[in-house]
Amino acid sequence: MSCITHAEAWKRLSAMNDILILAHAKPDGDAVGSMFALYHALRQCGKRVRCEIVDVPAALRFVVAPEAFSDFEPAHVVTVDVADQKLLNDCFKNTYGSRVELSIDHHGVHTAFAEETLVDPTAAAASEVLFDLFTIGGVALTKEIATCLYLGLSTDTGCFRFANTTAKTLRTAAALLEAGVDNGAINIEVFETKTPQYINFEKAAMNALRLCLGGKCAVMVLTQQMYREAGITEADTQGIKGLPRMIAGVYAGITVTEQPGGVYHASVRSKEPVNAAEICAEFGGGGHKYAAGCELGRDKEEALRGIVAAAERQLAKANLI
Amino acid sequence: MSCITHAEAWKRLSAMNDILILAHAKPDGDAVGSMFALYHALRQCGKRVRCEIVDVPAALRFVVAPEAFSDFEPAHVVTVDVADQKLLNDCFKNTYGSRVELSIDHHGVHTAFAEETLVDPTAAAASEVLFDLFTIGGVALTKEIATCLYLGLSTDTGCFRFANTTAKTLRTAAALLEAGVDNGAINIEVFETKTPQYINFEKAAMNALRLCLGGKCAVMVLTQQMYREAGITEADTQGIKGLPRMIAGVYAGITVTEQPGGVYHASVRSKEPVNAAEICAEFGGGGHKYAAGCELGRDKEEALRGIVAAAERQLAKANLI
Repeated sequence: MSCITHAEAWKRLSAMNDILILAHAKPDGDAVGSMFALYHALRQCGKRVRCEIVDVPAALRFVVAPEAFSDFEPAHVVTVDVADQKLLNDCFKNTYGSRVELSIDHHGVHTAFAEETLVDPTAAAASEVLFDLFTIGGVALTKEIATCLYLGLSTDTGCFRFANTTAKTLRTAAALLEAGVDNGAINIEVFETKTPQYINFEKAAMNALRLCLGGKCAVMVLTQQMYREAGITEADTQGIKGLPRMIAGVYAGITVTEQPGGVYHASVRSKEPVNAAEICAEFGGGGHKYAAGCELGRDKEEALRGIVAAAERQLAKANLI
Repeated sequence: MSCITHAEAWKRLSAMNDILILAHAKPDGDAVGSMFALYHALRQCGKRVRCEIVDVPAALRFVVAPEAFSDFEPAHVVTVDVADQKLLNDCFKNTYGSRVELSIDHHGVHTAFAEETLVDPTAAAASEVLFDLFTIGGVALTKEIATCLYLGLSTDTGCFRFANTTAKTLRTAAALLEAGVDNGAINIEVFETKTPQYINFEKAAMNALRLCLGGKCAVMVLTQQMYREAGITEADTQGIKGLPRMIAGVYAGITVTEQPGGVYHASVRSKEPVNAAEICAEFGGGGHKYAAGCELGRDKEEALRGIVAAAERQLAKANLI
């Protein structure tokens, strides 16, 4: 296993054919966007390519290319936006997990699992890594490719709102707009559209919001009953997880979500100087400095106590409490 | 009254001293940001400058330079981000409205009132016009100036989310980041921070949300009682006005707000192909294609009927109903 440069990664891709592209489970905009951007780029190079992905949120499906779901036996497997093999969907992990040749990623904490890894932790999104890769490879930036990359770049940066947005990210986005991306319309659909069901769910979530640790931590528990009552799924309510950190004075915003099988999952968002990834690492999870996740087991009260105690340790470490 | 170029505007400014800068009433991030960006730029040129502004929302006060509120008698009056003389605060309009020498603006509908006008309707914000002006004038892009301009650019584009965000807007923002703007922290404060009061107000607003015109229009009435009960002011809840348009299927999202004096004000947000400015023009208001405002009088029921009827006419014109 080794880390390679953009040029080496492009050379490696150029030598492949019959390629399968995978992204992480519970796909977000960057997973979906970078998957289909790479699909179109490799198709442009005349290759046979296919994708496997499940549970794409409704708002992100406009970049899904239906023809990408063909069924040839892949000769090569490539992943995009996958920081760790265990983040692959179980069925893909079992079938392909051990034979990934190239992993293209941007996560600061990347646990190498592919033969070769192209990882740029300064990139805001896997889509930003792909933009650089395509530039080196001379891929024509079609409106289709630019739209996929824009989806990845915009969703991983909260539409250029998060601290991972750099001058380079914005210049990359500028180039994508010049390639014809209809950013205004896409952003309305992705960032500004709520179904009446979502609004009902949001009200329930707001009612579930609690402050703790002297107002420096906010916790929200989302249950399967809440999803059922609002008539909505977790995949379509990812945005709500930003809510706890939004409260003025909060440094660690925690969303604990009951999974369909009864296991509780935590999504942690933090503010400088609190490190969300370190909070989640206590439970074997990971992610970015200000946004991370982990599994907490099946006991709700224990899950809550555990994650709040972990947040308390990080807040104490930062001299905030 | 005449329209002038950036170079001519800079020449005109260069010849001035003892300058008063004004922006529009109910200032938003672009009004405040462009005001203080221009203040710092002119101070950098060694000029005596002062600002007058009231009711700056708490979240935007970090760019306000306290030393800008001195009290010399201005020899020259300049406005930024003012599309129409009547949008000046009453007290400033009466004292200075007739003697504005230079108006720097970006609104597509600008009713000229100054001796000379620099208006670039392709710019996303007055701050983008100022960035170009400063580039021509050779103003050093200090972190202070860049921060003011970033506030204007980011707030007028919904943090680069709205359709007015162009490739040039994003490249301008990239240059501002390179000048040292702490975009991550600013965006958390401006776009991602909600007080517990705001969250309570938001819940009340969601409960007040109603669909009409077959789900293509959403209306929300915000009353003084709701503000009182949540312990918050209209100035600190501007963001809520984006809510009605967010509902899936809605083309015209209307927020009717009861003013402290009892007059009702409408804020209209629309989606392609519906023109919000045309809806508001029926009541003597104005703004942008997708975001506009107007006054509706003191009778709540009549106000609601009137604005929904105007929206209905625009939806019918667009063959949506």
